[in-house]
Amino acid sequence: MLSHVTLARRAMQLSSAPAHLPTGNRISLDSGYASPEILPDLRAAASIALNGHRSESLQYGQSFGLPDLREWIASFVSADGIDVPPDGVLVVNGAKNGLELVCRVLLDEGDSVVVTAPTYFTALPILRSFEVEIIEVPQDEEGLSVRDLHGALERRARDGKPPPKFIYDVPDFHNPTGITMSRHRREELVAAAESFGIPIVEDTPYRLLRYGGTQEPSLRELDRSENVLALGTFSKLLAPGLRIGWVLGPRPLLERMARLKGDGGSCPLTQRIIYEFVKDGGLAAHLHHACSVYASHRDAIVSAVLRELPDATFTVPLGGYYLWLRFPDGVDSSALAAAAYEQGVSVIAGAPFYANGGAEPDPHLRLAFSKSAPPEIDEGVRLLAIAYRSIR
Amino acid sequence: MLSHVTLARRAMQLSSAPAHLPTGNRISLDSGYASPEILPDLRAAASIALNGHRSESLQYGQSFGLPDLREWIASFVSADGIDVPPDGVLVVNGAKNGLELVCRVLLDEGDSVVVTAPTYFTALPILRSFEVEIIEVPQDEEGLSVRDLHGALERRARDGKPPPKFIYDVPDFHNPTGITMSRHRREELVAAAESFGIPIVEDTPYRLLRYGGTQEPSLRELDRSENVLALGTFSKLLAPGLRIGWVLGPRPLLERMARLKGDGGSCPLTQRIIYEFVKDGGLAAHLHHACSVYASHRDAIVSAVLRELPDATFTVPLGGYYLWLRFPDGVDSSALAAAAYEQGVSVIAGAPFYANGGAEPDPHLRLAFSKSAPPEIDEGVRLLAIAYRSIR
Repeated sequence: MLSHVTLARRAMQLSSAPAHLPTGNRISLDSGYASPEILPDLRAAASIALNGHRSESLQYGQSFGLPDLREWIASFVSADGIDVPPDGVLVVNGAKNGLELVCRVLLDEGDSVVVTAPTYFTALPILRSFEVEIIEVPQDEEGLSVRDLHGALERRARDGKPPPKFIYDVPDFHNPTGITMSRHRREELVAAAESFGIPIVEDTPYRLLRYGGTQEPSLRELDRSENVLALGTFSKLLAPGLRIGWVLGPRPLLERMARLKGDGGSCPLTQRIIYEFVKDGGLAAHLHHACSVYASHRDAIVSAVLRELPDATFTVPLGGYYLWLRFPDGVDSSALAAAAYEQGVSVIAGAPFYANGGAEPDPHLRLAFSKSAPPEIDEGVRLLAIAYRSIR
Repeated sequence: MLSHVTLARRAMQLSSAPAHLPTGNRISLDSGYASPEILPDLRAAASIALNGHRSESLQYGQSFGLPDLREWIASFVSADGIDVPPDGVLVVNGAKNGLELVCRVLLDEGDSVVVTAPTYFTALPILRSFEVEIIEVPQDEEGLSVRDLHGALERRARDGKPPPKFIYDVPDFHNPTGITMSRHRREELVAAAESFGIPIVEDTPYRLLRYGGTQEPSLRELDRSENVLALGTFSKLLAPGLRIGWVLGPRPLLERMARLKGDGGSCPLTQRIIYEFVKDGGLAAHLHHACSVYASHRDAIVSAVLRELPDATFTVPLGGYYLWLRFPDGVDSSALAAAAYEQGVSVIAGAPFYANGGAEPDPHLRLAFSKSAPPEIDEGVRLLAIAYRSIR
């Protein structure tokens, strides 16, 4: 009977990401929700989609996605230096689904992949579900350490192990560290990956949420050998709940991914709503507003941490959603997160961001400043500081 | 480099389902699109979702689905004799995604599964992508032949092969045959599956699209040992493009499936739109209209085939979308479908509905009567008859 089917092996690999549970009156500095203030008004776009495009929006869609939206995405990324035809765009259910499809075409049990330490924690259970070895490479202020990557790859080669199947990274406003990879490092990484023959999976959810500094070319733009698969998403550009993103890559690979989309194609209704909202420049105005809101959140959290948590060190992120705090060695961020939760603020401890669990105890904490407004951020950081003093 | 990565093995397993290509002025009797006439007006529901529920609809949703919708689904299936708590409902991206998730938790490479011959052709590439053996069991007028199932299972046991991991079937208005399993056969199948310890995956997309006859209890209702996983979908109840369905099953299994939903949860916006449309009885009126439209399509296609194709035999379907024609032995339905395409009507030949390719040549043809209106159905069948005469 089903209840007796042995599924333990697979279930064990899926260390679950923190659940999105209702938090009551708790201040949320944990998950990457959008600010309620910037959620767009999609009613006009929905009305167009459900009226003028009813048949297209409510019938089965094409497995590659809505042609209008794919054309728009191609022109959107071309403004960012990426030359791709609409045929090189596969619409997926958000970047997570994109990563999963990439895994399904590239990975077999026993393979290995490279991630930064720390890395986006939701990528880890996806990778683990494919029963692969996860190779962690450290990050510094310029991003993934290509020197350490070289070292790890050469060690594997000496040990007679096959090379990893891909390198996963978030080079812009990295989750969780907020670090943006330098131009020089990007060039090194693209060259190293090419010389080792290892594809890069570049995840760029936060790239246009910039509050300072200047934009570096994407890895995809620097790539000259079709060695970079790029993941994009409307989750951070427009709204997380839309569950629409894209993958850019060589057509034969995208075709295999499209065939693996067991879901009958991404929702054509949502795709049409997005297209109707973004097509006439709606996205630019929305992003301008979002960046100004998030810049104020970022400024608020930086000031609050400087004021309330003098023991924490951090790099000021120039964009994105996250502040990555490092407390002194010996501070157990899991205990700190639990104490903070008791105080009324939810944060995420460092360990789940490390494929191999991080330091023991791990002294990092990720604060998301996207959802909560400055007054809540102030109060949240104040409560976090009370929690910090309580565990010292 | 990516373009050189060897993916042939996986790609080979994915014999692709017929593409949904634009058909120009061709009459479509092929894919299971809805009649444009019955696509619901969801504008009011969308406006509520995007206004009163904007924050919930546009933020990340819960991996199990929108609580309101899960409660509605639980009460919807309870009206159909299935006693399940909202906790026993997992929202997925349509039934195909549900089947894929079931495969991901239940199957390992080298396992086997049972399907009817013929079966829903989109299930086949999903199953094949898991590198499993597909065991075909014949169908008769009462549905899957339990006697043949017994025979196949006993042969496997004698040969020292492990039992299949599940039995997949569409007992109501089967795709492609239109056959509805009899009450007696349902009881036999549920008992046999239980005695062999093999779960059943019951797919019921067409169950409420009934144009005659009386409803039999679902396999899930007859099941007393949590041995039936039920797949449901709004694709045929409301609109295919919504990409929202559900899985009913034991909670531990659903939890594993929810963790495998790499897409960040099904689109909360679409879920809220559906809920706002169905919650106050909107679905009953819609289904009443849909059934009356589809009954007229069914009647039109039955008359047209009787008139134009006297060589074809078929069972009149009491619901669903499809008419399954059998031509005399020796007729090659692939050649017939190709000739029909040239005449201006698209139909699907029998072979792709058989895991092992069907007879050589296969004399079956599936006609979908859902999308095209009676005048087009008449014309389409007339063109099909011209094609038939041309290949005889």
